[in-house]
Amino acid sequence: MGGYEELITYFEDQLSQQAFGHQPGELYAPISYTVGLGGKRIRPVLTLMSCELFGGKKEEALSQAIAIELFHNFTLIHDDIMDNAPIRRGEETVFKKWNANIAILSGDTLFALAYQYAQQARIDILPETLSVFSKTAIEVCEGQQFDLNYENRNDVSVEEYIEMIRLKTAVLFGASLKIGALVGGASKKDADTLYDFGINIGLGFQLKDDLLDTFGDEEVFGKKTGGDIISNKKTFLYLQALELADEQTKAELIKLYNTNHLSENDKTQRVKDIFSQFGVDQSANNLIDTYYLEGMKKLDSISIHETSKDILRDVAHRMIDRDK
Amino acid sequence: MGGYEELITYFEDQLSQQAFGHQPGELYAPISYTVGLGGKRIRPVLTLMSCELFGGKKEEALSQAIAIELFHNFTLIHDDIMDNAPIRRGEETVFKKWNANIAILSGDTLFALAYQYAQQARIDILPETLSVFSKTAIEVCEGQQFDLNYENRNDVSVEEYIEMIRLKTAVLFGASLKIGALVGGASKKDADTLYDFGINIGLGFQLKDDLLDTFGDEEVFGKKTGGDIISNKKTFLYLQALELADEQTKAELIKLYNTNHLSENDKTQRVKDIFSQFGVDQSANNLIDTYYLEGMKKLDSISIHETSKDILRDVAHRMIDRDK
Repeated sequence: MGGYEELITYFEDQLSQQAFGHQPGELYAPISYTVGLGGKRIRPVLTLMSCELFGGKKEEALSQAIAIELFHNFTLIHDDIMDNAPIRRGEETVFKKWNANIAILSGDTLFALAYQYAQQARIDILPETLSVFSKTAIEVCEGQQFDLNYENRNDVSVEEYIEMIRLKTAVLFGASLKIGALVGGASKKDADTLYDFGINIGLGFQLKDDLLDTFGDEEVFGKKTGGDIISNKKTFLYLQALELADEQTKAELIKLYNTNHLSENDKTQRVKDIFSQFGVDQSANNLIDTYYLEGMKKLDSISIHETSKDILRDVAHRMIDRDK
Repeated sequence: MGGYEELITYFEDQLSQQAFGHQPGELYAPISYTVGLGGKRIRPVLTLMSCELFGGKKEEALSQAIAIELFHNFTLIHDDIMDNAPIRRGEETVFKKWNANIAILSGDTLFALAYQYAQQARIDILPETLSVFSKTAIEVCEGQQFDLNYENRNDVSVEEYIEMIRLKTAVLFGASLKIGALVGGASKKDADTLYDFGINIGLGFQLKDDLLDTFGDEEVFGKKTGGDIISNKKTFLYLQALELADEQTKAELIKLYNTNHLSENDKTQRVKDIFSQFGVDQSANNLIDTYYLEGMKKLDSISIHETSKDILRDVAHRMIDRDK
């Protein structure tokens, strides 16, 4: 059974050999570009890994792993238009490098290409894997819409935020694991439990992202921290601070996120101070631990060898207990 | 076996009973709005009809008919953003009524919803129907990209235009028929032949659209003609005129499409005169007839009762020999 690094190498190698189409070039160049930008490839590796966990071969789960990764890349292309984001993984986004129309259409094509891989599942599991895939796709769209809605609302609760990141981020981790498990021959019950494991580590993963963006060590993190604060992103840290702070600090925090009366550096520093004052970094760490432990409990209850589970425990650890 | 009107009524009734989702409202309101705007529903009716043609029941093809119609509606939502189109079927487009982000994301959701219906096909035909569905989806995106590309090119050939409308429009007619046929129990050969019938009547349908937009009887057509000319759309008529005209008229036509030196009415009149002078309306009619006859030949070669074919002949006739 392959470890994380081995599976990444295998997946990258196989992905680079796929031909997605050629003409019109305006459609396919952005697809090759985006897929080639890399990224952590966590999701497809989870698919391959959970297939192996139940005794399947990684080759059998390859089409599903590619489907998941292409779907993820499609969401990035469209999200970048909606977020007006110029940079992704250190390079220009499709919408900046080409234009919005090309980004819409190459994203749509990538979505259909993802389905072309998804529909290659074995016939005995095809209805089930497709059902997971489409349900997940819809939920990810719902999550993104909630995220857009929350930009214009000042009364978002921590609970609503958690539900938003569950939809936008965690369900795809759950689906990656569940689909891989089904390919590997898992029972419906084990596949569902692995899905729940994925939801928990997915939530932990996103909360860790929030935490690192504000409190990460810039040397290790590899980029400037404070991006979420500068762009007024209502992360867990912000929403939790609003729930814990006194009225005066709460008003100050809302003002900091709704006006530009301070320089970026001063604003970031002041917001960080407020976050620290109310211990929301610690709240985030506590919540991450809760999800991590809940995920581990799910993993414990699955009927496979303990040694096989260690590989997934290692991934969960990498996703959550990381510095970058 | 149901005729056209009966199948439309059945489809509208069934479609109106589908629940697509509720929250977030920003995602689902545009979907209900678009699906509720109506339209000719030709594609889903073709699916139901071709299922019945091979002995299937319309109920068995319903999920596929809905999948096709939702996919078509998804393309309209995204096309309207790309074309900056304010009006569709007499009402504001999603992108105008809401905004571009909501149009992108509700379109994406509708695409995934379409797959949720597509994947409900009977297990013995599921891989084949999904394969047709995804291939068609990709081709429609390719066609739209070629269409966008041609806006900025002055050397588009009639041949390139035909290939563009084959991808953008005709393949979905072909797929609607082929998928319905597969549900109805058609042989692979008959399903493929019906696909070819669909391509031919699809091409004829689009060319008829071009013709009516310029030379339609405004009373019958129900809207002002000349829209394509005013928006400099490089239709068959324009491209054929460029191929047939003398150098001087060709230069004038290109100038008419690239500058705004005339009023809309004067421009439309002058372009129409050039079209008539070189008989491109007749060329279009001839080509429509060619595709119609080619489609009929395909239909003739299918191994079903002649009386059943009459219903499809009637549809082909409605699609091509129409005044609006």
